[in-house]
Amino acid sequence: MDIPVINFLDKFSKIEDHWAPKIIAALNNYHLKLAKVYGDFIWHNHIDTDEVFIVIEGELRIDFRDSSLTVKSGEMVVVPKGVDHKPYAEKECKILLVEPAGIINTGSTLGKYTVLKDEWI
Amino acid sequence: MDIPVINFLDKFSKIEDHWAPKIIAALNNYHLKLAKVYGDFIWHNHIDTDEVFIVIEGELRIDFRDSSLTVKSGEMVVVPKGVDHKPYAEKECKILLVEPAGIINTGSTLGKYTVLKDEWI
Repeated sequence: MDIPVINFLDKFSKIEDHWAPKIIAALNNYHLKLAKVYGDFIWHNHIDTDEVFIVIEGELRIDFRDSSLTVKSGEMVVVPKGVDHKPYAEKECKILLVEPAGIINTGSTLGKYTVLKDEWI
Repeated sequence: MDIPVINFLDKFSKIEDHWAPKIIAALNNYHLKLAKVYGDFIWHNHIDTDEVFIVIEGELRIDFRDSSLTVKSGEMVVVPKGVDHKPYAEKECKILLVEPAGIINTGSTLGKYTVLKDEWI
C-alpha cells in the first residue's frame, strides 16, 4: 500500500497566501483542505453544503448575521448550508476544512478572494 | 444562530470505552466521530467508502496486509475503500474519524467490537 501519512504542520509550511485553501486529501467526493487565514474574509454562504472548520493553530472568529463565535486550537464548528458567515482572524490562524470537492471558497460571492480551483499540496 | 463550538478534549472526557466511535458533528451525510483506542482492533475494510483517521493525541499504528504506518498527533491518513486494515495503539490514543453516516466500525467483519449504531455525545 502506498498510503501517505499527512502531517499538518509540514503541509502548512508549503502555504504562503492567506484565505487560499489547499487540498491535502480526498475522502470519496470530499476534500480535506488546509488554509492559513488572517484578517477579514468576506460574507458568503454555501447554498448546497455544510462546511467544517477545525482550528489547528491559533484562533478563528466566525461572524454570523446575528452573532459570532470563536473557535480555538482543538475545536471545530460546522457552518450549516445556506448560512451567511464571515471568518476573521486577528492573528494568523491555521485551519483544516472538510467539504465536498469542487465547492468555491467564497460561495456565490465572487471577488478577489475567490479561488475557482483549489490546488493540491 | 445556535451553532456549537465543539472542543475535542471536552468530548473525549465523555468517552470511556475503547474502539467505540461517538458522533460529535454532522457534515451533510457524513459524520465526524471521536474514539479512544487502545490495543488491537480487528482486520476489516469498508467496501463502499474511504475513511479518514486524524490523530488528536497519541500514536496510532495502522497495519495493512503488506505494510504498516504510524500516525502521530497532528497527522492523518485516508484508508481507501476496500483496503483491509487493522488499527493498533500501544498506549491509549485519541482519534477523529470522518466517514459517511451509518457505516459500521468493523465493516462487514462483525464481532465483539462491532457498534451497529453510533451514539452522539
